[in-house]
Amino acid sequence: MGKDSTKKSERDIIEYISNLLALQADRDLIKGIGDDCAVFRKDNKSCILVTTDTLVAGVHFDLAWHPPLLLGRKTAAVNLSDIAAMGGKPRYAFLNLAFPGSAPAWLDDFLAGFYEMLQEYDTHLVGGDTVKSPNDLSMSVTLIGEAAEDEICYRSGAEIGDFVFVSGFLGDAAAGLSLCQSGLSAGSSTPWQQLVKAHLDPLPQVKLGRMLADSRLVHAMIDISDGLATDLAHICTQSRTGAEIFKEALPVSETLRAAAEKLKSPIFDWVLKGGEDYKLLFTVSPDHEKDLQRRVAKQSGMEIYPIGRIIEGRGVHLCSRERRQNISYQGYDHFIG
Amino acid sequence: MGKDSTKKSERDIIEYISNLLALQADRDLIKGIGDDCAVFRKDNKSCILVTTDTLVAGVHFDLAWHPPLLLGRKTAAVNLSDIAAMGGKPRYAFLNLAFPGSAPAWLDDFLAGFYEMLQEYDTHLVGGDTVKSPNDLSMSVTLIGEAAEDEICYRSGAEIGDFVFVSGFLGDAAAGLSLCQSGLSAGSSTPWQQLVKAHLDPLPQVKLGRMLADSRLVHAMIDISDGLATDLAHICTQSRTGAEIFKEALPVSETLRAAAEKLKSPIFDWVLKGGEDYKLLFTVSPDHEKDLQRRVAKQSGMEIYPIGRIIEGRGVHLCSRERRQNISYQGYDHFIG
Repeated sequence: MGKDSTKKSERDIIEYISNLLALQADRDLIKGIGDDCAVFRKDNKSCILVTTDTLVAGVHFDLAWHPPLLLGRKTAAVNLSDIAAMGGKPRYAFLNLAFPGSAPAWLDDFLAGFYEMLQEYDTHLVGGDTVKSPNDLSMSVTLIGEAAEDEICYRSGAEIGDFVFVSGFLGDAAAGLSLCQSGLSAGSSTPWQQLVKAHLDPLPQVKLGRMLADSRLVHAMIDISDGLATDLAHICTQSRTGAEIFKEALPVSETLRAAAEKLKSPIFDWVLKGGEDYKLLFTVSPDHEKDLQRRVAKQSGMEIYPIGRIIEGRGVHLCSRERRQNISYQGYDHFIG
Repeated sequence: MGKDSTKKSERDIIEYISNLLALQADRDLIKGIGDDCAVFRKDNKSCILVTTDTLVAGVHFDLAWHPPLLLGRKTAAVNLSDIAAMGGKPRYAFLNLAFPGSAPAWLDDFLAGFYEMLQEYDTHLVGGDTVKSPNDLSMSVTLIGEAAEDEICYRSGAEIGDFVFVSGFLGDAAAGLSLCQSGLSAGSSTPWQQLVKAHLDPLPQVKLGRMLADSRLVHAMIDISDGLATDLAHICTQSRTGAEIFKEALPVSETLRAAAEKLKSPIFDWVLKGGEDYKLLFTVSPDHEKDLQRRVAKQSGMEIYPIGRIIEGRGVHLCSRERRQNISYQGYDHFIG
């Protein structure tokens, strides 16, 4: 990372730090940078998972339309989702708040929402920090979880031939954000409620993540926070594989199609690049594709969708009847600059 | 915390959250909010320690005089100091950065300093987050450490009659900050180098913390980040005791006295309320006072200073020949509003 460069993405900085760390060795450290959580050994059988995220007002959320209670829930949810993505059980949370001036009136609701979401996943708020800032409101969350060492699902385990699955509709949250930005989200009778909720109040798929890890059929897993195109590229990069996904196989809700028409937005920008879906994206040997679908349906009543394959080579390719295009890393990026 | 209140201190918010958490129970959680670190069980013998802090430009540091390399070192040091305060061994660090615009040119130096300080204490940087912010530069660090369960030093263990010790000069860092603010810090030949260094590049007393924990003679411990008056009040509140400290016994450097004269500043504002000393403050049974002093001197060559006693009642009292005054919580507070 040269001093003369003017624009760096989050990826550049992570890569720079990763290089700095390449020579590190530690007997208990199983996974450092490069996955949803860092992983280190707890005892003979189990591991500690740690994830941390910072959310900044005006960048990651907008209080103009985000009710404080739901923002609190979401702040917890996005971190719980990182634990879900490794197949872990969340245990302890830390919340750092920075805001200008006096404690804002909505802080009670925010904290109540944060706490409520943690409780739904049996997670304890055990520490944090509260500081003044000159201008920006931000929150940093650290979440600590646990998992059996031999059940943890890394990004790096995908194998050539694996089926790529996703655990729910894509793009709803991105569409919900567009609706909020367009002022079309208000009122409980809005036809867009499902989309707006996906943006304002996403649910982390912790139970599904544990079920998938427990099945031991999943080779690689990640949660979709930056969009399918970017998050599948993370799996491919870490696994040294490529992937192709089939446009017609992507699970898209009817409501999303209607919203796309209303807003005159291209559906697949939301579906591929929108981000914040917080669904799980994972790969499974083709021998176990049907078995896993049945198992998930039976245990949770949820549907999981096969959307593509892990292939040799590099990059994520979107295939449709008309064409095949490389869409790697075209998702949302916390772009700096 | 009512919505109508207009000013809240960090303490108010922590108290509010603590009340929220009072009913929580978790078999592995040994200490939640209310100490330098959260503590939870790792295995039969040892515990995981977790601390997290947010630093914001213009509130916690000023790049006008803080060289990026030293700021990186200090960002790691203030968190390492929290692990030291429990008698723990630091293991893993997470760094979240938020800044506006492009990655600033000084980021390389900042990261090099952060990394350097971690390495000095055998700690690995294993994760984090990098995000854009509209205005403010901030960093949140999470540090994970380890300690034997029966060696951990909490704030809550002080006993009536204990001697109160501090592990070095007080007030140097606060004086250093004043010198930087007054433009008197420049040049390597400045007579104030010791004070300026105490502000810009404090060293966490990790080895001393481990030695004190290992001695098993320490009843309560904290690091001085908010100033003696506040941090001793934390020990008293958690231990349900009072304390008195003797003005004449407080370790004050000659350089500090000279700087106070130069800047026409009251010395004891720096010594009692300045904060950011990052020395250890701890209590010891009077039976072991001399023993511990000898042990520390022999093992580390360092001096530790008895400055007062733990007493019945409440509050921290400063005693001098002239008077006795309650100085509880008069230290630095990340005051909100």
